[in-house]
Amino acid sequence: MKKITFEDVIRTTEAPYPDFHLKPGRTALILIDMQKFVLGEHLVKAAVKAGLEERSVREVVKEYDERVKKATKNAQKVLNSCRKKGFDVVHVRMQGPSDNPRHTAKVNRKIGLIVPPKFEDGEFIDEVKPLSSELVITKTNGGALSGTNLDFILRNMDIDSLILVGFLTDQCVLATSIHAADLGYDVLIVEDACTTRSKTLHDAVLLAQKDVCAKIKSADEVVKIIEKI
Amino acid sequence: MKKITFEDVIRTTEAPYPDFHLKPGRTALILIDMQKFVLGEHLVKAAVKAGLEERSVREVVKEYDERVKKATKNAQKVLNSCRKKGFDVVHVRMQGPSDNPRHTAKVNRKIGLIVPPKFEDGEFIDEVKPLSSELVITKTNGGALSGTNLDFILRNMDIDSLILVGFLTDQCVLATSIHAADLGYDVLIVEDACTTRSKTLHDAVLLAQKDVCAKIKSADEVVKIIEKI
Amino acid sequence: MKKITFEDVIRTTEAPYPDFHLKPGRTALILIDMQKFVLGEHLVKAAVKAGLEERSVREVVKEYDERVKKATKNAQKVLNSCRKKGFDVVHVRMQGPSDNPRHTAKVNRKIGLIVPPKFEDGEFIDEVKPLSSELVITKTNGGALSGTNLDFILRNMDIDSLILVGFLTDQCVLATSIHAADLGYDVLIVEDACTTRSKTLHDAVLLAQKDVCAKIKSADEVVKIIEKI
Amino acid sequence: MKKITFEDVIRTTEAPYPDFHLKPGRTALILIDMQKFVLGEHLVKAAVKAGLEERSVREVVKEYDERVKKATKNAQKVLNSCRKKGFDVVHVRMQGPSDNPRHTAKVNRKIGLIVPPKFEDGEFIDEVKPLSSELVITKTNGGALSGTNLDFILRNMDIDSLILVGFLTDQCVLATSIHAADLGYDVLIVEDACTTRSKTLHDAVLLAQKDVCAKIKSADEVVKIIEKI
Repeated sequence: MKKITFEDVIRTTEAPYPDFHLKPGRTALILIDMQKFVLGEHLVKAAVKAGLEERSVREVVKEYDERVKKATKNAQKVLNSCRKKGFDVVHVRMQGPSDNPRHTAKVNRKIGLIVPPKFEDGEFIDEVKPLSSELVITKTNGGALSGTNLDFILRNMDIDSLILVGFLTDQCVLATSIHAADLGYDVLIVEDACTTRSKTLHDAVLLAQKDVCAKIKSADEVVKIIEKI
Repeated sequence: MKKITFEDVIRTTEAPYPDFHLKPGRTALILIDMQKFVLGEHLVKAAVKAGLEERSVREVVKEYDERVKKATKNAQKVLNSCRKKGFDVVHVRMQGPSDNPRHTAKVNRKIGLIVPPKFEDGEFIDEVKPLSSELVITKTNGGALSGTNLDFILRNMDIDSLILVGFLTDQCVLATSIHAADLGYDVLIVEDACTTRSKTLHDAVLLAQKDVCAKIKSADEVVKIIEKI
Repeated sequence: MKKITFEDVIRTTEAPYPDFHLKPGRTALILIDMQKFVLGEHLVKAAVKAGLEERSVREVVKEYDERVKKATKNAQKVLNSCRKKGFDVVHVRMQGPSDNPRHTAKVNRKIGLIVPPKFEDGEFIDEVKPLSSELVITKTNGGALSGTNLDFILRNMDIDSLILVGFLTDQCVLATSIHAADLGYDVLIVEDACTTRSKTLHDAVLLAQKDVCAKIKSADEVVKIIEKI
Repeated sequence: MKKITFEDVIRTTEAPYPDFHLKPGRTALILIDMQKFVLGEHLVKAAVKAGLEERSVREVVKEYDERVKKATKNAQKVLNSCRKKGFDVVHVRMQGPSDNPRHTAKVNRKIGLIVPPKFEDGEFIDEVKPLSSELVITKTNGGALSGTNLDFILRNMDIDSLILVGFLTDQCVLATSIHAADLGYDVLIVEDACTTRSKTLHDAVLLAQKDVCAKIKSADEVVKIIEKI
């Protein structure tokens, strides 16, 4: 006889979050903070500038940087297949409307995370750059739906479901996915098209959302689904 | 020579989230979903009703139930000290405005989490019941700030900082704290006055927020701070 | 040859707001502040209590009171036909969550408009009382969509269009209709199921919205449309 | 003995909206839709292009155009005095993020009011052009607070009161002022620094708000107050 688990008990009070259909015109791909300052190279520059020794910095940053690059490649795959099928694509980026710190949200101002409009490493990562027809949304806080008019635009476009990729899994991606689910969107997070500083935290926050308020799939799974549409 | 860590590198790009003052009239204590259905006893009832064997259920629920009870005791301590000093207290609970599933947010409707107005286990846990002068906010989704007018009320009360306690750390508490931080509130999560189904997830989501968008303190630390006010 | 008017010129830059279909499950009837304190009788009570002479008060209130009563009858007609066809019905009322003025929105607190939970004249007007299955939304400010979770509930119900009736045309009804249009809802205001203190202002604010951001129709026209569904 | 008026009766139930202080750092000047397409010249161009006879068009547009120009001069006066005293200034404009109509809010899409990013007459009117340090907020709907992140930015700047100028009094200015009041901002509308297509509607919507949810003052009055700060 199979042993009862805590999960079995929970399942008597809640059903798993159901799967949903991806539909051009109704589903949007949201790329979150896929900017150069997320790359390891930016961290190296900043750390060296602050006086840390370059070789040691490169060493501790390496594993993270590889994860970011791999996630970017996966996001690019999903982006390409979405573009092919005519899905709406929205690029969200962290960027202040001016150099004035008062124009940056308090949450980021508190930790000194001010991204001026002309900050070089604020540019989109090459692999996932927006086309001129695609929406670009600028924010100075974490969640893409709380400090912007993204929700307003999406609902005016009759978008009801979101595919999320980008950085960082446990910060801006998490804030966006939880808020999106709360607002009523169907949410699909592409697990290997996101990452964060700690692999453990990446896994943990995806597990916390999995089948509770989001579907979690790999880039390959998502591309396969989209190609069949 | 001290070895450089990844954390050292990050700290060259972001400062830690600063500490802030708790002030009656400006800081509110928010108790999240501290309702009887979170207790182990409710899970036992539901599971037994669904045909699972009671003894085994009690066994797998035990550790969770103890954490919930401990968190409740700690929330009660914080609540008492907040009341003594005249802090605003808001009790948020999960409850539909009617039995009609359409009146429950999609996010919870999808997983069958409908809490009718007269659901017995929807009552507040005895230790942390609201006084008649305290606000009670009802929601049918996760985050207390996205599906309610709580943010509206708080800003109209000139509240700028929140102390958060309640359930579940990686779901409604997380959704509320991230959103609160994004909106500009100073956020303090009382780590041992919250819990969730998995101790690992509890720890992980607190770590993800710690010094990034929230301060994390124990109930004893918070009570000590409040008593000095 | 017909003389060119300013209206003709405007019509070369903007088309008239198009008509739209009313559909059960997609359209909701929103009754705004149809509470006893809007009736002339409440004004008489308040004015007499404040020392004004009753007969004179009744005289100056009479014309207004008749308009309120007529609008109520018309709202009732629309309500009945909506109920018959299974439209969602939402009753919005002005009411504080407690007697504490801090729990009332600043906008109303500033003018001393605090409606305590047990205020007798805060009850719904008899002709348009909610059924137990209908949603009741409580607010302490003007617009029904800015200080409540009404928009959240409506979008989670897949409502995309609103029929508005109630009081006062140039205050809470206006605030609600403009905001609803901005959020993307199709808006229909039932012109003779609303009124305000001044007939001139009633007419003016409806004219300002007509064919710009709302359709304006009479109760009889609306009932006729609904009956054909 | 003075005859009782309806206004006297109302004043026994509601106090007049109180005056408030303008304070640099707390009060922002919001210029709404002060763009070239509001000028008479744009209407003339559009009407002539649509086949109307130019001389007649100029004639019917003349009175409106004069009001727009006068309001612009008055807005400029207020703008200059605000700049001198270090008030935050925000320029709100109507402009789509792309030529794609789906990226424009439904409310404007319905009436064909799409303003592409490079639309020439979408530029700010010369007299009230933004400085590079001033915020520019883009919207595709009416109210400046519902389809943008303006409220988010203002609250993160600790702004609690607004001075409103711009176009059109009974549309975007009205939508913004009512919403601002509802959100808790103190609102001051500069009556002769706004206008709309009909002088009657301009007067009516200001009267509807006067001392209920906004203070209404002339540009000269406002400049005098600001100069004393």
